[in-house]
Amino acid sequence: MLDYFFNPKGVAVIGASIDRTKGGFFLLRNALVGYRGKIYPVNPKYNEIQGVQSYPDIRSIPENFDLALYFIPAKFLPDTIRECARKGVKAIIIESSGFSEVGKEGERLQTESLALARQYGIRLWGPNCMGYLDGHSMYAFSFMRIEGWVPLMKAGNVSFIVQSGMLSAGFLMMILERGGMGISKACSIGNKCDVNETELLEYFINDERTEVIGCYLESIIDGRRFLELARGSDKPIVVLKGGRSDVGTRAVMSHTASMSGSDAVYTGAFMQAGIVQVYDLYELMDVVRGFSKTKSYTPRSGTAVMTFSGGAAIVTTDLLADSGINLAELSSETLAELAKLFPSWAKPANPLDLWPAVEAGDAYTVYTASVKALFADPAVDSIIVEAFAFGFNGSDFFSIIRELMNKYGKPIAVWAIGIGPILSAFRTAVEDAGLPVFSEIKRCAEFFAGVRRHFIKKEKLREYSR
Amino acid sequence: MLDYFFNPKGVAVIGASIDRTKGGFFLLRNALVGYRGKIYPVNPKYNEIQGVQSYPDIRSIPENFDLALYFIPAKFLPDTIRECARKGVKAIIIESSGFSEVGKEGERLQTESLALARQYGIRLWGPNCMGYLDGHSMYAFSFMRIEGWVPLMKAGNVSFIVQSGMLSAGFLMMILERGGMGISKACSIGNKCDVNETELLEYFINDERTEVIGCYLESIIDGRRFLELARGSDKPIVVLKGGRSDVGTRAVMSHTASMSGSDAVYTGAFMQAGIVQVYDLYELMDVVRGFSKTKSYTPRSGTAVMTFSGGAAIVTTDLLADSGINLAELSSETLAELAKLFPSWAKPANPLDLWPAVEAGDAYTVYTASVKALFADPAVDSIIVEAFAFGFNGSDFFSIIRELMNKYGKPIAVWAIGIGPILSAFRTAVEDAGLPVFSEIKRCAEFFAGVRRHFIKKEKLREYSR
Repeated sequence: MLDYFFNPKGVAVIGASIDRTKGGFFLLRNALVGYRGKIYPVNPKYNEIQGVQSYPDIRSIPENFDLALYFIPAKFLPDTIRECARKGVKAIIIESSGFSEVGKEGERLQTESLALARQYGIRLWGPNCMGYLDGHSMYAFSFMRIEGWVPLMKAGNVSFIVQSGMLSAGFLMMILERGGMGISKACSIGNKCDVNETELLEYFINDERTEVIGCYLESIIDGRRFLELARGSDKPIVVLKGGRSDVGTRAVMSHTASMSGSDAVYTGAFMQAGIVQVYDLYELMDVVRGFSKTKSYTPRSGTAVMTFSGGAAIVTTDLLADSGINLAELSSETLAELAKLFPSWAKPANPLDLWPAVEAGDAYTVYTASVKALFADPAVDSIIVEAFAFGFNGSDFFSIIRELMNKYGKPIAVWAIGIGPILSAFRTAVEDAGLPVFSEIKRCAEFFAGVRRHFIKKEKLREYSR
Repeated sequence: MLDYFFNPKGVAVIGASIDRTKGGFFLLRNALVGYRGKIYPVNPKYNEIQGVQSYPDIRSIPENFDLALYFIPAKFLPDTIRECARKGVKAIIIESSGFSEVGKEGERLQTESLALARQYGIRLWGPNCMGYLDGHSMYAFSFMRIEGWVPLMKAGNVSFIVQSGMLSAGFLMMILERGGMGISKACSIGNKCDVNETELLEYFINDERTEVIGCYLESIIDGRRFLELARGSDKPIVVLKGGRSDVGTRAVMSHTASMSGSDAVYTGAFMQAGIVQVYDLYELMDVVRGFSKTKSYTPRSGTAVMTFSGGAAIVTTDLLADSGINLAELSSETLAELAKLFPSWAKPANPLDLWPAVEAGDAYTVYTASVKALFADPAVDSIIVEAFAFGFNGSDFFSIIRELMNKYGKPIAVWAIGIGPILSAFRTAVEDAGLPVFSEIKRCAEFFAGVRRHFIKKEKLREYSR
């Protein structure tokens, strides 16, 4: 039962520290952020750590408790499991390294520990991981040494399953910083000797608070079950698979001791299961963030592109074509509607370069009237809005788009350029309006390709269930 | 002679305005920034504009002058050329639109104007363009309506040839904002009825202040000559070719009225000429910025990757493989040197995950000793340094890398993650140390692929000339 990890009664922090340079300091400090039950720091050197009564060992803890966070050297794990069993512990998150990823000796220790835990009915998470953070409960059972995550964390609909330690922490900070994407749970599973990606995937598919699932995985232990779960789920599942190349596969062995498997097999299987595959870290973030703001999509003739730059329009058209996305053929009604905004010498088309209309009129009127016309066109199934990050802050342009997006169920991708603070404020305004914004044009195209793959699968699922 | 554009004696600003909402306001204001010769605003409505004596028409200007900036409606161009000829004008930058990009009538006007200009020995730049900016002279003969570019502009070794209007302005701001890349000249050539990309390419190949050339082109008018020039140049030439797809080609027609030509032909020809082809806007910026900081490269066994994250290392390895870049096989000496930094259970390898060493020791020592060992390894031809943007600010880590880069002639790419202001400060510190920093791991791989292509050509050129 993963509930002992996610809703424990009582948590011991084994290896809690008063030393700010140690992970054990952050492990306790992070646990204290959101968890309101009993916390038992364990460290023989102190009576009190960070203002909390501390215990020299597990047996000294006066009550039984559900969860232990383990951050002492690997070799003490078997004894710790035995001690934990006596305290009714149901789950241990092992964040220390020194297990199967370091060779035969570590592997033996990991196998022995798992056998012991099974004997006692204790579930293990990790080892060699960074635990998890929950955006709703604000439980943070992770030694991640990052200052300032608390005010940045927003509760939301995205859950992550990440098979790498540092990655999940640095990664999470980037996600929080980019704004606009809320977190349900972010889980770092490391060597995943017991709790693995497939079990978590099933949990998140059934979790009401999770609407989008993002994964960084170096291997998939029960691939058949993982794919079966994905195929049957109507939640978008976005996977960055590490170790696609031969050299990457070898690197995976020494990182989390996993067999990463053949790239072509994964790619084909992902496609069949409607899993959206991505290839870079920000791409994973960006595509997941896009999905977190996208509720529906129905394929029609293609995408409409609205821009301030003929050059950007052309680059966008090329990159959409590279991703197999067509441009929508606008109806004559739409073109007639748009023509009212343009000087007589300039003919509106798709991609729609608004520059001549903006030169001749007023940017706000031109942008809002154009986006309305594009949404209303039955041939348009998705829209890319390209903007120079000036002048729109504080206007209702983006809330108009959000309303149109909800009304017509057509996905939006905003691409913005501009300079530092103005661009940042602009991006925040767009994200706050519930629209996904991207830095790279190619990312808009990649996102729409993912949207197509996911929602076509979702439509098929709906047909089967009728 | 392009010198009449770049070093004119006297400049008329035809269509200068006192109205801040008009491009003619910015055209004059930008010209006044750096140009120290005579400036003659022309507008029949005023005696003085922005504190400068103004003239009702060209014939009223008391002296002869070299350059006219044209920003009044298209139809007045032929008469303006005649007037300019009487004042000894040698060059006109036509920033107005309404020429061949708007159809037959505009095309006729453009052809007629060009014939007239040739008759008088006047060179034309544009029309439908945004002129140019010079980072050294600070001449800004452009109507770009952007506040705040002056303090951001840094003189440098990069020149741009851009065939799109808004693109070149928005684009330029992004370049300036990202920091660390200095500009020689940024030229927007629009419909390029006379001065075109090939002439500018030749100019920049011979320009002492230009060491890297970046282009956004929708067509290449004299393709044979362009490729011949590129093939014979030892300066990196990076080209984003718009209109690669069929739909993109049609969009080009209505943007700058150019025939964009077949994608496959361009791609093959670019490769043969050692031109580095890119596909997205930030990619153009990033790769050009990378080259602006990279003086040499000699292919050896491959790239070394130094990272704080096993997961990032694996993704990097996969993306390098996608770009055809090998990982360097580190020598046993290097591995022995690195092993001193690592705990006994962790074996250094390439990619080099520094996490176990940093956990066991001190980040600064580990990072500096590792990067020194990697540079010294004869098998390593290039290095990716991945860092979490914490703790390095104010340290000499990046100046150490710069010295090593100069000493060994091995290109560096820094990939950094982290949060907002800390990440920005970190990026600036890296750029200021003369190292290129990238946001996307894939971009590091794409940059190194470009480096390989360029420097292999450069080496061949050197062999031929022996």
